[in-house]
Amino acid sequence: MSILVVGSVAFDDVTSPSGSVKGILAGAATYFSLAASYFTKVRVVAVVGEDFGAEQEQVFLKRGIDIRGIEHAQGKTFRWGGTYGENLNEAKTDFTDLNVFQGFQPRIPQEYEDTEFLFLANIQPTLQADVRRKMNRVRLTGCDTMNYWIKGALAELRETLKLVDVLLINDTETKMLAGETNLPRAANKVLAMGPQALVIKHGEYGATIFFREGAFGIGRHPFRAPTLPLDEVKDPTGAGDCFGATFVSCWSSVTELPSSALAVGGFLVSDASPLGSVPAIWFGWVRVGSTEP
Amino acid sequence: MSILVVGSVAFDDVTSPSGSVKGILAGAATYFSLAASYFTKVRVVAVVGEDFGAEQEQVFLKRGIDIRGIEHAQGKTFRWGGTYGENLNEAKTDFTDLNVFQGFQPRIPQEYEDTEFLFLANIQPTLQADVRRKMNRVRLTGCDTMNYWIKGALAELRETLKLVDVLLINDTETKMLAGETNLPRAANKVLAMGPQALVIKHGEYGATIFFREGAFGIGRHPFRAPTLPLDEVKDPTGAGDCFGATFVSCWSSVTELPSSALAVGGFLVSDASPLGSVPAIWFGWVRVGSTEP
Repeated sequence: MSILVVGSVAFDDVTSPSGSVKGILAGAATYFSLAASYFTKVRVVAVVGEDFGAEQEQVFLKRGIDIRGIEHAQGKTFRWGGTYGENLNEAKTDFTDLNVFQGFQPRIPQEYEDTEFLFLANIQPTLQADVRRKMNRVRLTGCDTMNYWIKGALAELRETLKLVDVLLINDTETKMLAGETNLPRAANKVLAMGPQALVIKHGEYGATIFFREGAFGIGRHPFRAPTLPLDEVKDPTGAGDCFGATFVSCWSSVTELPSSALAVGGFLVSDASPLGSVPAIWFGWVRVGSTEP
Repeated sequence: MSILVVGSVAFDDVTSPSGSVKGILAGAATYFSLAASYFTKVRVVAVVGEDFGAEQEQVFLKRGIDIRGIEHAQGKTFRWGGTYGENLNEAKTDFTDLNVFQGFQPRIPQEYEDTEFLFLANIQPTLQADVRRKMNRVRLTGCDTMNYWIKGALAELRETLKLVDVLLINDTETKMLAGETNLPRAANKVLAMGPQALVIKHGEYGATIFFREGAFGIGRHPFRAPTLPLDEVKDPTGAGDCFGATFVSCWSSVTELPSSALAVGGFLVSDASPLGSVPAIWFGWVRVGSTEP
Protein backbone atom coordinates (compact mmCIF):
# COMPACT_ATOMS: atom_id res chain seq x y z
CA MET A 1 0.00 0.00 0.00
CA SER A 2 1.34 3.49 -0.79
CA ILE A 3 0.32 7.14 -0.65
CA LEU A 4 1.43 9.91 -2.94
CA VAL A 5 1.33 13.47 -1.65
CA VAL A 6 1.70 16.55 -3.82
CA GLY A 7 2.25 19.86 -2.06
CA SER A 8 4.75 22.34 -0.76
CA VAL A 9 8.20 21.75 0.70
CA ALA A 10 9.25 24.97 2.39
CA PHE A 11 11.50 26.78 4.80
CA ASP A 12 9.45 28.53 7.50
CA ASP A 13 10.07 31.33 9.96
CA VAL A 14 7.69 30.78 12.88
CA THR A 15 7.04 32.93 15.93
CA SER A 16 4.75 31.81 18.73
CA PRO A 17 4.44 32.72 22.43
CA SER A 18 6.99 29.92 23.01
CA GLY A 19 9.72 31.49 20.86
CA SER A 20 10.98 31.97 17.31
CA VAL A 21 12.65 29.75 14.72
CA LYS A 22 13.98 30.69 11.28
CA GLY A 23 14.38 28.66 8.11
CA ILE A 24 13.10 25.35 9.45
CA LEU A 25 12.15 22.59 7.03
CA ALA A 26 8.36 22.72 6.67
CA GLY A 27 5.56 22.75 4.10
CA ALA A 28 2.42 20.65 3.74
CA ALA A 29 4.11 17.83 1.78
CA THR A 30 6.85 17.61 4.44
CA TYR A 31 4.44 17.41 7.38
CA PHE A 32 2.13 15.05 5.54
CA SER A 33 4.84 12.64 4.44
CA LEU A 34 6.59 12.52 7.82
CA ALA A 35 3.29 11.75 9.59
CA ALA A 36 2.12 9.20 6.99
CA SER A 37 5.52 7.44 7.07
CA TYR A 38 4.60 5.95 10.45
CA PHE A 39 1.78 4.01 8.77
CA THR A 40 2.56 3.30 5.14
CA LYS A 41 4.94 3.85 2.20
CA VAL A 42 4.99 7.49 1.16
CA ARG A 43 5.92 9.13 -2.13
CA VAL A 44 6.32 12.89 -2.55
CA VAL A 45 5.85 15.18 -5.54
CA ALA A 46 7.12 18.70 -4.86
CA VAL A 47 9.71 21.26 -5.95
CA VAL A 48 12.71 22.62 -4.05
CA GLY A 49 15.49 25.09 -4.79
CA GLU A 50 19.25 25.01 -4.58
CA ASP A 51 19.14 25.67 -0.82
CA PHE A 52 17.60 22.21 -0.29
CA GLY A 53 20.43 19.73 0.11
CA ALA A 54 21.54 16.46 1.68
CA GLU A 55 20.68 17.62 5.21
CA GLN A 56 17.03 18.20 4.27
CA GLU A 57 16.84 15.03 2.20
CA GLN A 58 17.94 13.04 5.24
CA VAL A 59 14.83 14.18 7.15
CA PHE A 60 12.74 12.33 4.57
CA LEU A 61 15.10 9.43 3.90
CA LYS A 62 15.52 8.43 7.52
CA ARG A 63 11.72 7.91 7.61
CA GLY A 64 11.91 5.77 4.46
CA ILE A 65 10.07 8.34 2.32
CA ASP A 66 10.46 8.05 -1.46
CA ILE A 67 11.59 11.50 -2.67
CA ARG A 68 12.28 10.70 -6.31
CA GLY A 69 9.35 13.00 -7.12
CA ILE A 70 10.96 16.04 -5.48
CA GLU A 71 12.14 18.19 -8.36
CA HIS A 72 15.26 20.33 -7.89
CA ALA A 73 14.91 23.68 -9.65
CA GLN A 74 17.15 26.71 -9.99
CA GLY A 75 16.49 29.37 -7.36
CA LYS A 76 15.31 29.31 -3.78
CA THR A 77 12.87 26.98 -2.04
CA PHE A 78 9.42 28.31 -1.13
CA ARG A 79 9.51 30.32 2.13
CA TRP A 80 6.71 31.23 4.53
CA GLY A 81 6.78 33.31 7.68
CA GLY A 82 3.99 33.38 10.27
CA THR A 83 3.26 34.50 13.81
CA TYR A 84 0.89 32.93 16.34
CA GLY A 85 -0.57 34.92 19.23
CA GLU A 86 -2.10 33.50 22.39
CA ASN A 87 -4.80 31.98 20.18
CA LEU A 88 -2.74 29.26 18.50
CA ASN A 89 -5.63 28.31 16.21
CA GLU A 90 -4.71 30.94 13.65
CA ALA A 91 -1.43 32.27 12.22
CA LYS A 92 -0.82 35.77 10.91
CA THR A 93 1.17 35.42 7.68
CA ASP A 94 4.25 37.64 7.78
CA PHE A 95 5.47 36.83 4.26
CA THR A 96 5.06 34.30 1.43
CA ASP A 97 7.95 33.93 -1.04
CA LEU A 98 6.83 31.48 -3.72
CA ASN A 99 10.34 31.25 -5.29
CA VAL A 100 10.68 27.96 -7.26
CA PHE A 101 7.04 27.15 -6.47
CA GLN A 102 5.97 29.92 -8.84
CA GLY A 103 6.33 27.96 -12.07
CA PHE A 104 5.75 24.51 -10.53
CA GLN A 105 4.33 21.89 -12.92
CA PRO A 106 4.05 18.60 -11.03
CA ARG A 107 5.70 15.65 -12.77
CA ILE A 108 4.84 12.14 -11.66
CA PRO A 109 7.78 9.69 -11.77
CA GLN A 110 6.88 6.51 -13.63
CA GLU A 111 7.59 4.51 -10.45
CA TYR A 112 4.76 6.36 -8.71
CA GLU A 113 2.03 5.48 -11.21
CA ASP A 114 0.75 2.45 -9.29
CA THR A 115 0.10 4.49 -6.12
CA GLU A 116 -3.29 3.65 -4.64
CA PHE A 117 -3.91 6.62 -2.35
CA LEU A 118 -3.41 10.26 -3.23
CA PHE A 119 -3.37 13.41 -1.13
CA LEU A 120 -3.61 16.78 -2.84
CA ALA A 121 -2.19 19.17 -0.24
CA ASN A 122 -3.02 22.86 -0.31
CA ILE A 123 -1.78 24.12 -3.71
CA GLN A 124 -3.36 25.82 -6.74
CA PRO A 125 -6.56 23.83 -7.58
CA THR A 126 -5.61 23.43 -11.26
CA LEU A 127 -2.36 21.70 -10.26
CA GLN A 128 -4.32 19.45 -7.90
CA ALA A 129 -6.70 18.45 -10.71
CA ASP A 130 -3.78 17.89 -13.07
CA VAL A 131 -2.10 15.45 -10.66
CA ARG A 132 -5.38 13.65 -9.98
CA ARG A 133 -5.98 13.15 -13.72
CA LYS A 134 -2.51 11.66 -14.15
CA MET A 135 -3.09 9.09 -11.41
CA ASN A 136 -5.48 6.61 -13.00
CA ARG A 137 -5.09 3.83 -10.48
CA VAL A 138 -5.82 5.69 -7.25
CA ARG A 139 -8.54 4.20 -5.08
CA LEU A 140 -9.06 7.23 -2.86
CA THR A 141 -8.10 10.89 -3.19
CA GLY A 142 -7.93 13.28 -0.25
CA CYS A 143 -7.73 17.03 -0.80
CA ASP A 144 -7.00 20.17 1.20
CA THR A 145 -7.52 23.81 0.19
CA MET A 146 -7.69 27.26 1.81
CA ASN A 147 -9.53 30.60 1.82
CA TYR A 148 -7.06 32.03 -0.70
CA TRP A 149 -8.23 29.58 -3.41
CA ILE A 150 -11.90 29.73 -2.38
CA LYS A 151 -11.82 33.49 -2.92
CA GLY A 152 -9.43 33.67 -5.85
CA ALA A 153 -9.87 30.45 -7.85
CA LEU A 154 -13.37 29.20 -7.07
CA ALA A 155 -14.20 27.96 -10.57
CA GLU A 156 -10.96 25.94 -10.73
CA LEU A 157 -11.50 24.63 -7.22
CA ARG A 158 -15.01 23.44 -8.09
CA GLU A 159 -13.55 21.48 -11.03
CA THR A 160 -11.01 19.88 -8.69
CA LEU A 161 -13.71 18.97 -6.14
CA LYS A 162 -15.41 16.82 -8.79
CA LEU A 163 -12.30 14.62 -8.83
CA VAL A 164 -11.72 14.06 -5.11
CA ASP A 165 -13.25 11.57 -2.67
CA VAL A 166 -12.55 13.30 0.65
CA LEU A 167 -12.10 17.03 1.22
CA LEU A 168 -10.44 18.08 4.49
CA ILE A 169 -10.94 21.77 5.41
CA ASN A 170 -11.82 23.83 8.48
CA ASP A 171 -15.09 25.44 9.67
CA THR A 172 -14.42 28.86 8.15
CA GLU A 173 -13.40 27.39 4.79
CA THR A 174 -16.49 25.17 4.72
CA LYS A 175 -18.86 28.08 5.41
CA MET A 176 -17.09 30.30 2.86
CA LEU A 177 -17.13 27.61 0.16
CA ALA A 178 -20.85 26.92 0.75
CA GLY A 179 -21.97 30.53 1.38
CA GLU A 180 -23.87 29.22 4.42
CA THR A 181 -23.34 29.81 8.14
CA ASN A 182 -24.90 26.63 9.57
CA LEU A 183 -22.22 23.95 9.54
CA PRO A 184 -24.27 20.82 8.68
CA ARG A 185 -26.12 22.70 5.91
CA ALA A 186 -22.80 24.09 4.63
CA ALA A 187 -21.37 20.56 4.67
CA ASN A 188 -24.21 19.26 2.53
CA LYS A 189 -23.68 22.05 0.00
CA VAL A 190 -19.97 21.24 -0.24
CA LEU A 191 -20.70 17.52 -0.64
CA ALA A 192 -23.01 18.39 -3.54
CA MET A 193 -19.93 19.83 -5.31
CA GLY A 194 -18.37 16.39 -5.65
CA PRO A 195 -16.63 14.80 -2.64
CA GLN A 196 -18.07 11.64 -1.13
CA ALA A 197 -17.02 12.79 2.32
CA LEU A 198 -16.10 16.09 3.94
CA VAL A 199 -13.89 16.24 7.02
CA ILE A 200 -14.30 19.56 8.82
CA LYS A 201 -11.35 20.32 11.09
CA HIS A 202 -12.31 22.24 14.26
CA GLY A 203 -8.75 22.90 15.48
CA GLU A 204 -8.50 22.25 19.20
CA TYR A 205 -12.06 20.86 19.29
CA GLY A 206 -11.55 17.93 16.93
CA ALA A 207 -13.17 17.22 13.57
CA THR A 208 -16.43 16.03 12.03
CA ILE A 209 -16.86 13.83 8.97
CA PHE A 210 -19.97 14.30 6.83
CA PHE A 211 -20.91 11.79 4.13
CA ARG A 212 -22.93 12.02 0.96
CA GLU A 213 -26.07 9.93 1.20
CA GLY A 214 -24.94 6.30 1.00
CA ALA A 215 -21.26 7.15 0.41
CA PHE A 216 -18.93 4.22 1.12
CA GLY A 217 -21.95 2.24 2.25
CA ILE A 218 -22.12 4.33 5.43
CA GLY A 219 -25.06 6.63 4.82
CA ARG A 220 -25.00 10.27 5.75
CA HIS A 221 -24.82 10.41 9.53
CA PRO A 222 -22.00 12.73 10.56
CA PHE A 223 -19.38 11.45 12.97
CA ARG A 224 -17.53 13.80 15.28
CA ALA A 225 -14.20 13.00 16.96
CA PRO A 226 -12.83 15.09 19.81
CA THR A 227 -9.14 15.80 20.40
CA LEU A 228 -6.94 15.26 23.40
CA PRO A 229 -6.40 18.63 25.09
CA LEU A 230 -2.70 19.48 25.56
CA ASP A 231 -1.44 21.83 28.22
CA GLU A 232 1.58 22.84 26.18
CA VAL A 233 1.36 23.72 22.49
CA LYS A 234 4.36 25.49 21.04
CA ASP A 235 3.89 25.41 17.26
CA PRO A 236 0.74 24.13 15.54
CA THR A 237 2.11 24.61 11.99
CA GLY A 238 1.44 21.48 9.95
CA ALA A 239 -1.03 19.98 12.43
CA GLY A 240 -3.76 19.89 9.76
CA ASP A 241 -1.38 18.16 7.34
CA CYS A 242 -0.46 15.57 9.97
CA PHE A 243 -4.15 15.02 10.60
CA GLY A 244 -4.78 14.56 6.87
CA ALA A 245 -1.87 12.12 6.72
CA THR A 246 -3.14 9.94 9.51
CA PHE A 247 -6.65 10.04 8.12
CA VAL A 248 -5.66 8.90 4.63
CA SER A 249 -3.04 6.49 6.02
CA CYS A 250 -5.59 4.75 8.20
CA TRP A 251 -7.88 4.52 5.25
CA SER A 252 -5.09 3.08 3.12
CA SER A 253 -4.35 0.43 5.74
CA VAL A 254 -7.85 -1.02 5.29
CA THR A 255 -7.57 -3.70 2.65
CA GLU A 256 -11.21 -3.82 1.66
CA LEU A 257 -13.14 -0.74 0.58
CA PRO A 258 -16.00 -0.16 0.98
CA SER A 259 -16.56 -1.85 4.30
CA SER A 260 -19.38 -1.62 6.75
CA ALA A 261 -18.26 -0.12 10.01
CA LEU A 262 -16.71 3.08 11.18
CA ALA A 263 -14.02 3.28 13.82
CA VAL A 264 -11.74 5.88 15.26
CA GLY A 265 -8.04 5.50 14.63
CA GLY A 266 -4.91 7.32 13.78
CA PHE A 267 -2.87 9.94 15.49
CA LEU A 268 0.32 11.70 14.93
CA VAL A 269 3.05 13.81 15.63
CA SER A 270 4.67 16.76 14.01
CA ASP A 271 8.29 16.47 15.03
CA ALA A 272 9.70 18.64 12.28
CA SER A 273 9.72 21.92 14.20
CA PRO A 274 12.37 22.58 16.82
CA LEU A 275 9.68 24.64 18.59
CA GLY A 276 7.45 21.63 18.84
CA SER A 277 8.76 19.54 21.69
CA VAL A 278 5.20 18.48 22.43
CA PRO A 279 3.72 16.52 19.55
CA ALA A 280 0.52 17.68 17.95
CA ILE A 281 -1.84 14.76 18.27
CA TRP A 282 -4.86 14.44 16.03
CA PHE A 283 -7.36 11.79 15.24
CA GLY A 284 -8.36 10.36 11.91
CA TRP A 285 -11.08 7.86 11.15
CA VAL A 286 -10.94 4.64 9.31
CA ARG A 287 -13.70 2.42 8.18
CA VAL A 288 -13.17 -1.17 9.23
CA GLY A 289 -15.14 -4.39 9.09
CA SER A 290 -16.43 -6.69 6.42
CA THR A 291 -16.94 -5.73 2.81
CA GLU A 292 -20.45 -4.95 1.70
CA PRO A 293 -21.69 -6.68 -1.45
CA MET B 1 -33.11 9.89 44.21
CA SER B 2 -33.82 13.61 43.88
CA ILE B 3 -32.21 16.82 42.66
CA LEU B 4 -32.77 20.31 43.97
CA VAL B 5 -32.10 23.24 41.65
CA VAL B 6 -31.89 26.84 42.76
CA GLY B 7 -31.93 29.50 40.06
CA SER B 8 -34.01 31.84 37.99
CA VAL B 9 -37.53 31.43 36.69
CA ALA B 10 -38.08 34.11 34.09
CA PHE B 11 -40.07 35.44 31.18
CA ASP B 12 -37.82 35.91 28.13
CA ASP B 13 -38.04 37.88 24.91
CA VAL B 14 -35.86 36.08 22.36
CA THR B 15 -34.96 37.04 18.81
CA SER B 16 -32.96 34.77 16.53
CA PRO B 17 -32.60 34.44 12.74
CA SER B 18 -35.61 32.06 12.99
CA GLY B 19 -37.97 34.65 14.49
CA SER B 20 -39.04 36.38 17.69
CA VAL B 21 -40.99 35.40 20.78
CA LYS B 22 -42.02 37.53 23.74
CA GLY B 23 -42.67 36.68 27.37
CA ILE B 24 -42.01 32.94 27.16
CA LEU B 25 -41.48 30.94 30.33
CA ALA B 26 -37.72 30.52 30.73
CA GLY B 27 -34.87 30.88 33.23
CA ALA B 28 -32.12 28.50 34.28
CA ALA B 29 -34.20 26.74 36.96
CA THR B 30 -37.01 26.18 34.45
CA TYR B 31 -34.77 24.69 31.77
CA PHE B 32 -32.83 22.66 34.29
CA SER B 33 -35.86 21.18 36.01
CA LEU B 34 -37.70 20.34 32.79
CA ALA B 35 -34.65 18.51 31.43
CA ALA B 36 -33.85 16.72 34.69
CA SER B 37 -37.49 15.63 35.09
CA TYR B 38 -36.94 13.05 32.34
CA PHE B 39 -34.45 11.28 34.59
CA THR B 40 -35.23 11.84 38.25
CA LYS B 41 -37.38 13.65 40.85
CA VAL B 42 -36.79 17.40 40.72
CA ARG B 43 -37.33 20.10 43.33
CA VAL B 44 -37.09 23.81 42.56
CA VAL B 45 -36.15 26.79 44.72
CA ALA B 46 -36.83 30.10 42.97
CA VAL B 47 -38.92 33.26 43.15
CA VAL B 48 -41.71 34.46 40.85
CA GLY B 49 -44.00 37.46 40.73
CA GLU B 50 -47.75 37.98 40.47
CA ASP B 51 -47.62 37.42 36.68
CA PHE B 52 -46.73 33.75 37.28
CA GLY B 53 -49.94 31.78 37.59
CA ALA B 54 -51.60 28.43 37.07
CA GLU B 55 -50.67 28.28 33.39
CA GLN B 56 -46.96 28.51 34.18
CA GLU B 57 -47.25 26.14 37.13
CA GLN B 58 -48.74 23.54 34.82
CA VAL B 59 -45.54 23.48 32.72
CA PHE B 60 -43.72 22.19 35.81
CA LEU B 61 -46.52 20.08 37.28
CA LYS B 62 -47.19 18.09 34.13
CA ARG B 63 -43.55 16.95 34.28
CA GLY B 64 -43.99 15.95 37.93
CA ILE B 65 -41.68 18.68 39.23
CA ASP B 66 -42.02 19.65 42.91
CA ILE B 67 -42.52 23.44 42.97
CA ARG B 68 -43.24 23.92 46.67
CA GLY B 69 -39.93 25.81 46.80
CA ILE B 70 -41.05 28.44 44.28
CA GLU B 71 -41.77 31.54 46.34
CA HIS B 72 -44.49 33.92 45.15
CA ALA B 73 -43.53 37.53 45.80
CA GLN B 74 -45.22 40.85 45.15
CA GLY B 75 -44.20 42.42 41.87
CA LYS B 76 -43.17 41.08 38.49
CA THR B 77 -41.20 37.95 37.59
CA PHE B 78 -37.59 38.35 36.40
CA ARG B 79 -37.45 39.23 32.69
CA TRP B 80 -34.60 38.88 30.20
CA GLY B 81 -34.39 39.87 26.56
CA GLY B 82 -31.71 38.69 24.14
CA THR B 83 -30.89 38.53 20.44
CA TYR B 84 -28.89 35.89 18.56
CA GLY B 85 -27.20 36.63 15.25
CA GLU B 86 -26.02 34.06 12.72
CA ASN B 87 -23.56 32.86 15.35
CA LEU B 88 -25.98 31.17 17.73
CA ASN B 89 -23.22 30.51 20.26
CA GLU B 90 -23.64 33.91 21.88
CA ALA B 91 -26.62 36.14 22.75
CA LYS B 92 -26.58 39.91 22.93
CA THR B 93 -28.52 40.91 26.06
CA ASP B 94 -31.19 43.49 25.22
CA PHE B 95 -32.42 43.99 28.78
CA THR B 96 -32.38 42.42 32.25
CA ASP B 97 -35.21 43.33 34.65
CA LEU B 98 -34.45 41.66 37.98
CA ASN B 99 -37.88 42.52 39.46
CA VAL B 100 -38.72 40.09 42.32
CA PHE B 101 -35.29 38.48 41.90
CA GLN B 102 -33.70 41.61 43.35
CA GLY B 103 -34.30 40.82 47.01
CA PHE B 104 -34.34 37.04 46.62
CA GLN B 105 -33.32 35.08 49.72
CA PRO B 106 -33.65 31.38 48.93
CA ARG B 107 -35.72 29.42 51.47
CA ILE B 108 -35.50 25.64 51.50
CA PRO B 109 -38.80 23.89 52.31
CA GLN B 110 -38.42 21.31 55.05
CA GLU B 111 -39.55 18.60 52.63
CA TYR B 112 -36.48 19.32 50.47
CA GLU B 113 -33.88 18.80 53.18
CA ASP B 114 -33.17 15.16 52.33
CA THR B 115 -32.28 15.97 48.70
CA GLU B 116 -29.11 14.17 47.63
CA PHE B 117 -28.07 16.16 44.56
CA LEU B 118 -27.91 19.91 44.26
CA PHE B 119 -27.50 22.23 41.30
CA LEU B 120 -26.64 25.86 41.89
CA ALA B 121 -27.72 27.54 38.66
CA ASN B 122 -26.27 30.88 37.60
CA ILE B 123 -27.20 33.32 40.42
CA GLN B 124 -25.28 35.57 42.82
CA PRO B 125 -22.44 33.43 44.31
CA THR B 126 -23.31 34.34 47.90
CA LEU B 127 -26.84 32.96 47.41
CA GLN B 128 -25.35 29.80 45.89
CA ALA B 129 -23.10 29.32 48.93
CA ASP B 130 -26.00 30.02 51.29
CA VAL B 131 -28.13 27.28 49.70
CA ARG B 132 -25.23 24.83 49.69
CA ARG B 133 -24.61 25.41 53.41
CA LYS B 134 -28.26 24.74 54.22
CA MET B 135 -28.20 21.39 52.40
CA ASN B 136 -26.23 19.16 54.73
CA ARG B 137 -27.16 15.85 53.19
CA VAL B 138 -26.21 16.45 49.54
CA ARG B 139 -23.84 13.92 48.01
CA LEU B 140 -22.89 16.00 44.97
CA THR B 141 -23.21 19.69 44.14
CA GLY B 142 -23.05 21.06 40.60
CA CYS B 143 -22.60 24.78 39.96
CA ASP B 144 -22.85 27.23 37.08
CA THR B 145 -21.70 30.86 36.93
CA MET B 146 -20.99 33.56 34.34
CA ASN B 147 -18.62 36.38 33.36
CA TYR B 148 -20.74 38.90 35.24
CA TRP B 149 -19.93 37.26 38.62
CA ILE B 150 -16.31 36.44 37.68
CA LYS B 151 -15.75 40.14 37.03
CA GLY B 152 -17.97 41.63 39.72
CA ALA B 153 -18.04 39.15 42.61
CA LEU B 154 -14.82 37.15 42.35
CA ALA B 155 -14.11 36.94 46.08
CA GLU B 156 -17.65 35.64 46.77
CA LEU B 157 -17.43 33.24 43.83
CA ARG B 158 -14.15 31.79 45.12
CA GLU B 159 -15.82 31.11 48.48
CA THR B 160 -18.67 29.32 46.68
CA LEU B 161 -16.24 27.23 44.61
CA LYS B 162 -14.84 25.73 47.82
CA LEU B 163 -18.28 24.22 48.46
CA VAL B 164 -19.04 22.64 45.06
CA ASP B 165 -18.03 19.31 43.56
CA VAL B 166 -18.51 20.02 39.86
CA LEU B 167 -18.35 23.42 38.16
CA LEU B 168 -19.91 23.70 34.68
CA ILE B 169 -18.82 26.78 32.68
CA ASN B 170 -17.68 27.62 29.15
CA ASP B 171 -14.22 28.20 27.61
CA THR B 172 -14.27 31.99 28.00
CA GLU B 173 -15.42 31.82 31.60
CA THR B 174 -12.75 29.23 32.45
CA LYS B 175 -9.96 31.34 30.96
CA MET B 176 -11.25 34.50 32.65
CA LEU B 177 -11.58 32.81 36.04
CA ALA B 178 -8.06 31.36 35.79
CA GLY B 179 -6.37 34.34 34.11
CA GLU B 180 -4.79 31.87 31.67
CA THR B 181 -5.32 31.35 27.92
CA ASN B 182 -4.35 27.68 27.58
CA LEU B 183 -7.45 25.63 28.36
CA PRO B 184 -5.93 22.62 30.20
CA ARG B 185 -3.73 24.92 32.29
CA ALA B 186 -6.72 27.18 33.01
CA ALA B 187 -8.73 24.10 34.02
CA ASN B 188 -6.08 23.06 36.54
CA LYS B 189 -6.06 26.54 38.07
CA VAL B 190 -9.85 26.49 38.45
CA LEU B 191 -9.74 23.01 40.00
CA ALA B 192 -7.24 24.32 42.55
CA MET B 193 -9.99 26.74 43.71
CA GLY B 194 -12.10 23.88 45.04
CA PRO B 195 -14.16 21.77 42.64
CA GLN B 196 -13.33 18.08 42.21
CA ALA B 197 -14.26 18.28 38.54
CA LEU B 198 -14.65 21.04 35.96
CA VAL B 199 -16.88 20.61 32.93
CA ILE B 200 -15.97 23.09 30.21
CA LYS B 201 -18.81 23.61 27.73
CA HIS B 202 -17.63 24.26 24.15
CA GLY B 203 -21.06 25.11 22.70
CA GLU B 204 -21.50 23.40 19.33
CA TYR B 205 -18.24 21.47 19.79
CA GLY B 206 -19.15 19.55 22.93
CA ALA B 207 -17.60 19.64 26.37
CA THR B 208 -14.55 18.44 28.29
CA ILE B 209 -14.42 17.25 31.87
CA PHE B 210 -11.22 17.82 33.86
CA PHE B 211 -10.64 16.13 37.23
CA ARG B 212 -8.52 16.99 40.22
CA GLU B 213 -5.78 14.42 40.70
CA GLY B 214 -7.50 11.29 42.02
CA ALA B 215 -10.96 12.88 42.21
CA PHE B 216 -13.79 10.31 42.39
CA GLY B 217 -11.15 7.60 42.00
CA ILE B 218 -10.74 8.55 38.33
CA GLY B 219 -7.44 10.39 38.29
CA ARG B 220 -6.95 13.52 36.27
CA HIS B 221 -7.16 12.52 32.61
CA PRO B 222 -9.59 14.86 30.86
CA PHE B 223 -12.45 13.36 28.89
CA ARG B 224 -13.93 15.18 25.91
CA ALA B 225 -17.39 14.47 24.47
CA PRO B 226 -18.46 15.78 21.07
CA THR B 227 -22.00 16.90 20.18
CA LEU B 228 -24.36 15.83 17.46
CA PRO B 229 -24.35 18.56 14.80
CA LEU B 230 -27.86 19.85 14.00
CA ASP B 231 -28.78 21.45 10.70
CA GLU B 232 -31.53 23.55 12.28
CA VAL B 233 -31.06 25.46 15.53
CA LYS B 234 -33.70 28.06 16.30
CA ASP B 235 -33.14 29.07 19.91
CA PRO B 236 -30.22 27.86 22.03
CA THR B 237 -31.38 29.62 25.22
CA GLY B 238 -31.19 27.21 28.13
CA ALA B 239 -29.07 24.63 26.30
CA GLY B 240 -26.33 24.89 28.93
CA ASP B 241 -28.89 24.43 31.71
CA CYS B 242 -30.32 21.35 29.99
CA PHE B 243 -26.78 20.02 29.64
CA GLY B 244 -26.13 20.61 33.35
CA ALA B 245 -29.42 18.89 34.15
CA THR B 246 -28.61 15.76 32.20
CA PHE B 247 -25.09 15.69 33.59
CA VAL B 248 -26.17 15.85 37.23
CA SER B 249 -29.19 13.61 36.58
CA CYS B 250 -27.03 10.88 35.10
CA TRP B 251 -24.74 11.18 38.05
CA SER B 252 -27.69 10.98 40.45
CA SER B 253 -28.91 7.80 38.75
CA VAL B 254 -25.72 6.00 39.74
CA THR B 255 -26.36 4.38 43.08
CA GLU B 256 -22.76 3.97 44.14
CA LEU B 257 -20.31 6.89 44.27
CA PRO B 258 -17.40 6.82 43.78
CA SER B 259 -17.21 4.11 41.18
CA SER B 260 -14.43 3.06 38.90
CA ALA B 261 -15.33 3.63 35.28
CA LEU B 262 -16.37 6.52 33.14
CA ALA B 263 -19.09 6.31 30.52
CA VAL B 264 -20.92 8.67 28.24
CA GLY B 265 -24.59 9.18 28.84
CA GLY B 266 -27.37 11.66 29.04
CA PHE B 267 -29.00 13.93 26.52
CA LEU B 268 -31.85 16.25 26.46
CA VAL B 269 -34.22 18.51 25.14
CA SER B 270 -35.29 22.05 25.73
CA ASP B 271 -38.94 22.10 24.71
CA ALA B 272 -39.89 25.21 26.64
CA SER B 273 -39.39 27.69 23.78
CA PRO B 274 -41.98 27.97 21.01
CA LEU B 275 -39.03 28.90 18.75
CA GLY B 276 -37.31 25.63 19.52
CA SER B 277 -39.01 23.01 17.40
CA VAL B 278 -35.71 21.20 17.18
CA PRO B 279 -34.54 20.00 20.57
CA ALA B 280 -31.13 20.99 21.82
CA ILE B 281 -29.34 17.72 22.39
CA TRP B 282 -26.36 17.60 24.67
CA PHE B 283 -24.26 14.96 26.28
CA GLY B 284 -23.41 14.50 29.91
CA TRP B 285 -21.15 11.94 31.49
CA VAL B 286 -21.78 9.52 34.20
CA ARG B 287 -19.42 7.30 36.03
CA VAL B 288 -20.57 3.72 36.16
CA GLY B 289 -19.16 0.46 37.41
CA SER B 290 -18.17 -1.02 40.69
CA THR B 291 -17.38 0.90 43.84
CA GLU B 292 -13.76 1.39 44.73
CA PRO B 293 -12.67 0.50 48.26
